[in-house]
Amino acid sequence: MDVEQSLRLIRRGSEELLVESELVARLATGRPLRVKAGFDPTAPDLHLGHTVLINKLRHFQELGHHVMFLIGDFTGLIGDPTGKNATRPPLSREQIVDNAATYREQVFKILDPDKTEVCFNSAWFDSLGAAGMIKLAAQHTVARMLERDDFAKRYASGLPIAIHEFLYPLCQGYDSVAMRADVELGGTDQKFNLLVGRELQKHYGQAPQCILTMPLLEGTDGVNKMSKSLGNYIGISEGPREIFGKVMSISDDLMWRYYDLLSFRDASEISAMKAGVESGRNPRDIKVALALELVGRFHSRLAAEEALAEFEARFRQGVLPDDMPEVVVDAGGLDVVISQVLKMAGLTASTSEALRMIDQGGVRVNGDRVVDRGLLLSPGVSLVMQVGKRKFARVKIL
Amino acid sequence: MDVEQSLRLIRRGSEELLVESELVARLATGRPLRVKAGFDPTAPDLHLGHTVLINKLRHFQELGHHVMFLIGDFTGLIGDPTGKNATRPPLSREQIVDNAATYREQVFKILDPDKTEVCFNSAWFDSLGAAGMIKLAAQHTVARMLERDDFAKRYASGLPIAIHEFLYPLCQGYDSVAMRADVELGGTDQKFNLLVGRELQKHYGQAPQCILTMPLLEGTDGVNKMSKSLGNYIGISEGPREIFGKVMSISDDLMWRYYDLLSFRDASEISAMKAGVESGRNPRDIKVALALELVGRFHSRLAAEEALAEFEARFRQGVLPDDMPEVVVDAGGLDVVISQVLKMAGLTASTSEALRMIDQGGVRVNGDRVVDRGLLLSPGVSLVMQVGKRKFARVKIL
Repeated sequence: MDVEQSLRLIRRGSEELLVESELVARLATGRPLRVKAGFDPTAPDLHLGHTVLINKLRHFQELGHHVMFLIGDFTGLIGDPTGKNATRPPLSREQIVDNAATYREQVFKILDPDKTEVCFNSAWFDSLGAAGMIKLAAQHTVARMLERDDFAKRYASGLPIAIHEFLYPLCQGYDSVAMRADVELGGTDQKFNLLVGRELQKHYGQAPQCILTMPLLEGTDGVNKMSKSLGNYIGISEGPREIFGKVMSISDDLMWRYYDLLSFRDASEISAMKAGVESGRNPRDIKVALALELVGRFHSRLAAEEALAEFEARFRQGVLPDDMPEVVVDAGGLDVVISQVLKMAGLTASTSEALRMIDQGGVRVNGDRVVDRGLLLSPGVSLVMQVGKRKFARVKIL
Repeated sequence: MDVEQSLRLIRRGSEELLVESELVARLATGRPLRVKAGFDPTAPDLHLGHTVLINKLRHFQELGHHVMFLIGDFTGLIGDPTGKNATRPPLSREQIVDNAATYREQVFKILDPDKTEVCFNSAWFDSLGAAGMIKLAAQHTVARMLERDDFAKRYASGLPIAIHEFLYPLCQGYDSVAMRADVELGGTDQKFNLLVGRELQKHYGQAPQCILTMPLLEGTDGVNKMSKSLGNYIGISEGPREIFGKVMSISDDLMWRYYDLLSFRDASEISAMKAGVESGRNPRDIKVALALELVGRFHSRLAAEEALAEFEARFRQGVLPDDMPEVVVDAGGLDVVISQVLKMAGLTASTSEALRMIDQGGVRVNGDRVVDRGLLLSPGVSLVMQVGKRKFARVKIL
């Protein structure tokens, strides 16, 4: 593949590439580039949002480059040093080793293990020392750090910024120095930190890394970024049936976004599918193809076929209508009981009718029969709800 | 000595004591308090300005407390990590050991070596690690650090503040934790950092240290703070004759300030001397007593007597007049040649007369005959100048 073709694959779905001319020059040398991406050791339960970046690493692997999968165990061992954030307790070495194993298991469904170097940044930070940290901190100014969007906002509105938060971007940048990265990948929210890496590398006498930012993937609701806490995620460790069903629940617009960021099909193939839909092909078939690809990736081709068969069986005789109404239910951002949702979505005339239908086994969510009258649904999710044989709606809860 | 008497000695000459009630409570326990003062390992050439703090440590020793003389070797080993400040190169372990020896030699002219613990903060920082430094940095916020006067000014005027500068006050505070300090002494310019120590101790479960700030001593010019670079200093390693002469050159007002901050005489004795001068006693005798005390401290009683004798001999038959005029010569802050100063001070009618008098051996500065026609004098100094037998002036060069 020539440089231009490589660049096209690298850019696919990406948000920003800095500096393109530098990347072109490095690609032209023909040597395998050192491509870095960092991951938090506290969250090894990956969803499709995380795989956007991992897919991009895979592109680099396909182009023959050296992928470095960095697990940020150094900060993981520290946790939240202010002790205020209970969701970030310090991890033990054992927990990190366990998490790393879980990571490997998950990412090697996408990456080629033989072409992936898994790195731990404690390897260089454990020997850096307090003095080394001070020298590192000397490489950046307070004013420039306060230019970072979230810092600027918090400072302006009087919200506290603990001083160690200024050290973390420097640590991330120092990782690039220690790893001699040619390219670093990150989410768009990581741009500032990735640029710090460029500067530190210059200071340490290295050519500055190119940075490639990837967009944040929207969740199944098509609105918010995919996130476990918002409930709009598709976990890569979920069962074939769950992944299949969730993919089928997304809107047609979101489907094309997922194709761009999650599918390994050629860009030309995707263009052909778009053209097909424009000239009348049922987008549902295209969605099935995406669901099959994703289940196949995280499980197997066989599991994907079974999930499709089950999915079709659940919506008996393929009654899932193509023109299903979309309904938005505003629950004020709070959990809401299913009977309430059914009424608000107009699928039943009252909550008491909703309860009666549940008791009779006539209510399904994403094809699954609901047995719990008190089932709580979370805001942020998008569900296919069915009452009786013919009433359907795609319900988005806010 | 009871608590009230102790408190009076502790407060003598000091600027601010925080929190007095806490100190009273600790003094009342009767246990020896752990009293900390930190010193920079790069400047072991002490002048009287430095001894203001050391004298206060001696007061604590006299009251039976435990004095900890901290040498900040940890940051000394780092130097200026930005590399921009050539006056702060990183020191080697050997240089620091040498400097510490020089320190000991000098401070033990004031402190009792048997009651002084010399500490090096590398003892705890070498084992703190990069992770420990991050945890330490988490104990303070960016906004509060920017409240420090010099940071606030630099930030407001767009001058860079390197991030490691935020870590130094935290390091100084952590010293107090590691040393379990009951009291920390510092210059008034150190108040912010001393308060950081209080907060960190609270965080680490210790009772917060009391802080005692000492004023910055004015140099012999009576205007600027004593500083080697301003040339208005009296070094404690200077010869008896130099110390004696420089003390005799200060103004009567400054003499009382020096009594408060540098003399070990009782406060009651000093009050009596003041009363004496007010009722007509010659202040020159009081100044001689101060010069004798200081030369005695840094050399010996005998050396002090000799210095006095020499001083008097130089001003033959004691002709140094009591009503010597004080003249200010504005040299625009630049070095200026002596002939120019003599003319500007009105001691000669012209520079050519000044040169002729020098050639004839008729010009003295602080009692020493001037032989060099091109002698340069620095701004900031205050000198007793004599031309011929009868023309005298105390000349201050700006």
